[in-house]
Amino acid sequence: MQARQQTSFLFDLDGTLVDSVYDHVIAWHDALQEEGIQVSIWRLHRKIGMSGGLFTKALARETGKEFEPDVLERLRKLHAKYYGLRSPRTAPLPGAKELLAYLSDNDIPWAIATSGRIETAGPVLKILGVNPEKNVVITRDLVRYAKPDPDLFLAAAEKLDVDIGSACVVGDSIWDMLAAQRARALGIGYLSGGYGTEELERSGAYRVYEDPADMLAHIDEVGGRR
Amino acid sequence: MQARQQTSFLFDLDGTLVDSVYDHVIAWHDALQEEGIQVSIWRLHRKIGMSGGLFTKALARETGKEFEPDVLERLRKLHAKYYGLRSPRTAPLPGAKELLAYLSDNDIPWAIATSGRIETAGPVLKILGVNPEKNVVITRDLVRYAKPDPDLFLAAAEKLDVDIGSACVVGDSIWDMLAAQRARALGIGYLSGGYGTEELERSGAYRVYEDPADMLAHIDEVGGRR
Repeated sequence: MQARQQTSFLFDLDGTLVDSVYDHVIAWHDALQEEGIQVSIWRLHRKIGMSGGLFTKALARETGKEFEPDVLERLRKLHAKYYGLRSPRTAPLPGAKELLAYLSDNDIPWAIATSGRIETAGPVLKILGVNPEKNVVITRDLVRYAKPDPDLFLAAAEKLDVDIGSACVVGDSIWDMLAAQRARALGIGYLSGGYGTEELERSGAYRVYEDPADMLAHIDEVGGRR
Repeated sequence: MQARQQTSFLFDLDGTLVDSVYDHVIAWHDALQEEGIQVSIWRLHRKIGMSGGLFTKALARETGKEFEPDVLERLRKLHAKYYGLRSPRTAPLPGAKELLAYLSDNDIPWAIATSGRIETAGPVLKILGVNPEKNVVITRDLVRYAKPDPDLFLAAAEKLDVDIGSACVVGDSIWDMLAAQRARALGIGYLSGGYGTEELERSGAYRVYEDPADMLAHIDEVGGRR
């Protein structure tokens, strides 16, 4: 029998630990509208959490347009501008701080792995009380490919010095769950990003909770003890 | 054998014909935040389309608070203010105008039935090119109970002079689908409000499309011919 390994938890950030998904959705919509590009808002919602490059590629494919590099650059800036208008009011999701504190207190390894870059993730980490100097945080800048590629989670496991095959990936989007499968980690889905239970289950979640508070209340179901 | 009846279509408005669900979500969140009430945004999203009274009752229950009448009145006004900031940019969903025109051209009865009041629905109907003097539009003001009660759809069928038992209710939220079941109509779900396929199917949708354009492209599947 192989040695039983300690479970570790690799968290997505937006929509999983902080309530920022809808702000990103609205900021993308405002940016696209300013560039004269009409896309239904639910389609943006369903793509949030993908790497920015794949996000714009998928949009171009769906709208049947090609976005020139200068348009992409303007969209990136407009998104940052509109997101910045809302982000100072972003709140942690219920139980997020408590869940991370519980894991730390019990010596259960955890990390954050986000498709966002450090300049957008930084302020959000501060809201959450996470210090990237003390805790393991992997941002888009540190890997070649973001979600749904598994690189972010693989890098997080490596930096934690844990086996990805005994880790759980915790996220709110189907891109997190697909990346979890590609990394051979188990996926835990949260409803707090606005996807439905079945969407998360069908993309590989082995368990679905409402949000961090709900997972903390049921932590024994998913190996949350030392 | 009973006489075969012509199918008719009773449409929800927000998220079904116009791309306004996320604007309502954000407006409610901004209003609640201004009143010092923290609620996760996805919970607001999942309640949009309910009658305003039930919406605030459900919020009060989930946050464990009681909202005094003056708080409710302020929330209503703040929501209207924040929604008004975004609504001038609201667009029809792809295919919405074309679908209604197709039904009219083919003498297939249709109506709009919305949980909104005429003052918020009015500008949206204009964007859509629907004239409430010429087309059947049932708003919250005209019935005692809004969705998930069936009254709005029953009133729409009555005004169209069609049998609700041969009508299809078309909507983007599970409240539309529950109201359809209570009215003994068939439910058709759209993804354009941000719910997932399975959520709509599990609440009773007998068919799910992405949006009006997708339904128009498959109109023969659901009785859309004279």
